[in-house]
Amino acid sequence: MENQKLGRQTFQPGSPPVIIGHGSAAGNKERTGPLSGCFDHTSADDAFGCKTYEQAESAMQGLALDAALKRAGLHTCDLDFLLAGDLLNQCIGSGYAARAADVPFFGLYGACSTMGESLALAALLLSGGYGAYAAAVTSSHFCSAERQYRTPLEYGSQRTPTAQWTATAAGAVIVTNEPRPGPRVMRVTVGRVKDKGITDANNMGAAMAPAAYETLKAHFEDTGLSPADYDLIATGDLGKLGHEIVTDLFDRDGVKLPNYTDCGLILFDRDAQDVHAGASGCGCSASVLCGHLLPGLLAGRWKKILFCPTGALHSPTATMQGESIPGVCHALALEA
Amino acid sequence: MENQKLGRQTFQPGSPPVIIGHGSAAGNKERTGPLSGCFDHTSADDAFGCKTYEQAESAMQGLALDAALKRAGLHTCDLDFLLAGDLLNQCIGSGYAARAADVPFFGLYGACSTMGESLALAALLLSGGYGAYAAAVTSSHFCSAERQYRTPLEYGSQRTPTAQWTATAAGAVIVTNEPRPGPRVMRVTVGRVKDKGITDANNMGAAMAPAAYETLKAHFEDTGLSPADYDLIATGDLGKLGHEIVTDLFDRDGVKLPNYTDCGLILFDRDAQDVHAGASGCGCSASVLCGHLLPGLLAGRWKKILFCPTGALHSPTATMQGESIPGVCHALALEA
Repeated sequence: MENQKLGRQTFQPGSPPVIIGHGSAAGNKERTGPLSGCFDHTSADDAFGCKTYEQAESAMQGLALDAALKRAGLHTCDLDFLLAGDLLNQCIGSGYAARAADVPFFGLYGACSTMGESLALAALLLSGGYGAYAAAVTSSHFCSAERQYRTPLEYGSQRTPTAQWTATAAGAVIVTNEPRPGPRVMRVTVGRVKDKGITDANNMGAAMAPAAYETLKAHFEDTGLSPADYDLIATGDLGKLGHEIVTDLFDRDGVKLPNYTDCGLILFDRDAQDVHAGASGCGCSASVLCGHLLPGLLAGRWKKILFCPTGALHSPTATMQGESIPGVCHALALEA
Repeated sequence: MENQKLGRQTFQPGSPPVIIGHGSAAGNKERTGPLSGCFDHTSADDAFGCKTYEQAESAMQGLALDAALKRAGLHTCDLDFLLAGDLLNQCIGSGYAARAADVPFFGLYGACSTMGESLALAALLLSGGYGAYAAAVTSSHFCSAERQYRTPLEYGSQRTPTAQWTATAAGAVIVTNEPRPGPRVMRVTVGRVKDKGITDANNMGAAMAPAAYETLKAHFEDTGLSPADYDLIATGDLGKLGHEIVTDLFDRDGVKLPNYTDCGLILFDRDAQDVHAGASGCGCSASVLCGHLLPGLLAGRWKKILFCPTGALHSPTATMQGESIPGVCHALALEA
């Protein structure tokens, strides 16, 4: 079967690429949360032994990539290319990790949707006949993100009820176009940028929910599938409020989402861990994918997952200038 | 012929995608430089009628994309996807432009190499059988970049001799996999991240030159071609010093680069326009490609160009932390 486009924005590989390795690294809060024991590397020290949190984030990408390569039975020199991104200004976490990996590199910026964007591009490039092995890597770090997006941690700012807790975590996935066993990337719905006018940088869930709704709707329209065709639909990091908004928007269309969750609701125990609306950050969907969803597919817990990382394409400068926050969401259909 | 990988890091489409539209927008300094008259849109007001320079940068992306679509005889709704990036924190220039375009969007961060990265991914995805039309868009703005990377303009800082002037410009390219007339993307060499330890944020040329050298060397090794096989080799924005370093590195290998220039040496008149080592910024290689190189291919001035945008993957945070500056360069072989 040939690669093809379905409907307006969905791409379907003729021979679905296979995920042959996944790896994750996570910080202390993640290590002590509900997914305790699910990650390949964790550290009680969020600096991961580094001098700066930015270096720590880069180190997490390296650890996640190493774990994923090990599972795949590969080395960095086997990779045809690496796709990576993060939340840091100018994506330095990925840049420094790519410097260490020394493989052909595509840097991405999709905010917290980057795990979806990187995995989508890896799958499409490989199934397009370019190379045999690719890595998709994504990270975020609570300390570097707070300093950059909001206020330095030392300020001890009060967090709003809609605030989410940026995950200190990284995930890495190795994809191949060779016919090997493993979860397959069946379809990719590439998101359009949606903005409903939210200007509150402490309400990412509401800013990103419209993009998640639009991409999910497009995915079902393009493919003729329905929510019930998936055992699990997991958006990226909408948290409690964003999850409610997406559920409500589909409800207004008369569509039920029976198996719908959000990675931002999985990573932390919202009540016990004081994370308000849930988890966020590139590392949220990346670590939940690599620590929870892919192992679940491999163990037969689910057969079909629609993985939909979401991103808020804003910056502190834009927020200070009063700009609203655009969102984007990419959907990937993964099958055991 | 099938899509294939050549050597270590070069990808060759079986049916080379065709560039059917290009568009550019540029500010006042660019409008009054050597490429005066080459751009589709220019403005004597670098704010482009907007309230902020960030909005102005986003507006330039929109103008460049409109001009490119017009040349291609297309509308935004015809695009299967848009690949875009810029230098702003969290790439907001591209995010806001993508919001306006409302097409499936891949956000990229490759610093000043982004015109190469976006065009490479567009060509590889289309030739891989995904969609018919894609846009690659890139921008930079002197005022937003100085504020962000160095000091606010109001400080009136003295610039060092190695400093380059960030271009206020945007470029957009429309690519198709349909057999139409126009310049073709024959080969793509995806760059690896190289870092020789430069820590001076005012010396981008020296930081990026090793990446340009490595990518060019890989391109010639992977393809079996030599520099003389191209009528023009144009790196992205190395400026005078970086251009000299690349020339010197090849000279040490006993390889002459007879037709080698740099977009950073083309955009401005270095002496008359007081730009020290030359031009830089994502918009530099983007506007030189769309205002000078592609029109030259179409007019028969050149038949084969190796276009090699270069990027410095640093951030002000990294620089303040004493990190060295990694560079990346992607090479695209374009043929009339």
